[in-house]
Amino acid sequence: MQLFSDRLVESIRKTGSPCVTGLDPRVHQMPAFIKSGRGAPTRATVRAVIADFHELVMDTVAGLAPAVKPQLAFFEQYGSAGIQAFEDTVQAAKERGLLVIADGKRNDVDSTAEAYAAAFLGEADIFGGKQKIFDVDAMTVTPYLGRDSMVPYVDACRQHGKGIFIVLKTSNPGSGDYQDQVLEATGRPLYESIAQTIHDLGDGLVGESGYSSIGPVIGATFPDTAARLRALLPRAFILVTGYGAQGASAEGVAACFNTDGLGAIVNSSRAITYSFGNENVSKAEFVHSVREKTLRMRDEIAAALTASG
Amino acid sequence: MQLFSDRLVESIRKTGSPCVTGLDPRVHQMPAFIKSGRGAPTRATVRAVIADFHELVMDTVAGLAPAVKPQLAFFEQYGSAGIQAFEDTVQAAKERGLLVIADGKRNDVDSTAEAYAAAFLGEADIFGGKQKIFDVDAMTVTPYLGRDSMVPYVDACRQHGKGIFIVLKTSNPGSGDYQDQVLEATGRPLYESIAQTIHDLGDGLVGESGYSSIGPVIGATFPDTAARLRALLPRAFILVTGYGAQGASAEGVAACFNTDGLGAIVNSSRAITYSFGNENVSKAEFVHSVREKTLRMRDEIAAALTASG
Repeated sequence: MQLFSDRLVESIRKTGSPCVTGLDPRVHQMPAFIKSGRGAPTRATVRAVIADFHELVMDTVAGLAPAVKPQLAFFEQYGSAGIQAFEDTVQAAKERGLLVIADGKRNDVDSTAEAYAAAFLGEADIFGGKQKIFDVDAMTVTPYLGRDSMVPYVDACRQHGKGIFIVLKTSNPGSGDYQDQVLEATGRPLYESIAQTIHDLGDGLVGESGYSSIGPVIGATFPDTAARLRALLPRAFILVTGYGAQGASAEGVAACFNTDGLGAIVNSSRAITYSFGNENVSKAEFVHSVREKTLRMRDEIAAALTASG
Repeated sequence: MQLFSDRLVESIRKTGSPCVTGLDPRVHQMPAFIKSGRGAPTRATVRAVIADFHELVMDTVAGLAPAVKPQLAFFEQYGSAGIQAFEDTVQAAKERGLLVIADGKRNDVDSTAEAYAAAFLGEADIFGGKQKIFDVDAMTVTPYLGRDSMVPYVDACRQHGKGIFIVLKTSNPGSGDYQDQVLEATGRPLYESIAQTIHDLGDGLVGESGYSSIGPVIGATFPDTAARLRALLPRAFILVTGYGAQGASAEGVAACFNTDGLGAIVNSSRAITYSFGNENVSKAEFVHSVREKTLRMRDEIAAALTASG
């Protein structure tokens, strides 16, 4: 079975881009053309609007982006209709050859962690038979509960050719509150201890590409920290957040890459899908906007990598 | 508007119990009588089995338990059908006067945290109008992303009379990996810094009962730590985990209570709902088992509180 990291490298080479399109459904901010003529906002309408919006986005970015990153919070805010739309979106992504990274920052202890791993990466036990459920390519996981809480996901990655990105250093101002705290035991920040765990967990899942299927989520709003973590995790793929709406620059992002031009994927959500101007944009204008912003981001990152390399 | 903490105290006084019934749907482990005659395990069947199982559990514990704690991982493992069953379960709990604590250990930064808060505690923006979605009484939240990531939930608690339980010290062996690390800045474990944040965030949400709607999740498998955190968070309600299947004793749990006999609720899931013996148990035997185990747990905790008080 092909490892997630190898599929990711293949997809990056094919599209010539490490830029992931974030899918954050915010129906009240979607263009009018996608909502008009739908009648009342029932559950079925909400599901269809979200699914149609994402199909249009993915028709546009397929071939230009290696993966999409649906943010589960924005699906979950529409209840089970939102989760149906998430299932629709995953299916549509696969049909378009886009890898799917489910961003839910899930975790828990013991058999509960196993249930999350089953839901997103593996199979659930239903009436004695096993079924794949969301079956995405990778998911995000939180580390605070300790190493043992992450093991079920690593096992699922090994068994099903999937990947995880473990939240390590986030892009928000408050990310320093706990993540940056220097530990007495090591004299180094907490995030470096977690980086060590990510390195160890990923050791057995390094593919032909030289990269592991276990990586960190790092906000590029702190370039020096990103560079330090890049050095600590040479074989990891970094899921880089904070580009675009959260203020990270292409130069900050460049610190997350290895000198081979690989080792990081960079997400942008709102700046790609919700910066179309006004809600009465036409479908053609919307598609043009998504395409232009996707290409511009790819070019900005490529230029920053050339400059830094 | 009545604060969550006051509603919780009222419910504990009415039922005479601080014991929360955990709802972890594991359909393959449910009794045969709840699954028989359903035909193939379609999405609709899975939804109905989970909803019916929980209705039966809640018919049994209503009046004996102040709240239920559905664990979202176990719903999510059945995809959107599982989330529909979660919605059914929340509705059925409300009809039976049971408070609902959604255990999903969610969090993210910025507007994504707001979306989770909207999904579970507040209202989502749909086509320009706002709608309540899951509308539970409280939810669990992870702290690793920092203080600012928790503020949207606190705001939602204030606005909608809801509560949150922030993951602080978990019951698993690996909970020491990061949570127990002593910080150079304070000379104290990380969990104490997070406890301070929980205390500060809860300050403005203390109700007539003297308790706040912002509390921690603490595993009772480490009684000394629990006692220390109890002292640091005098006005917080602690959601105590690890009782039953994870090995915490009633004596360990007692450390989480204040001398007024309040200040903690204790969850048990598998030990209440999945310890009915064999899968061919009758409906009457199943109900008897759930009832007996609910009463026994209540009595064990009460005895431990008497002994320690």
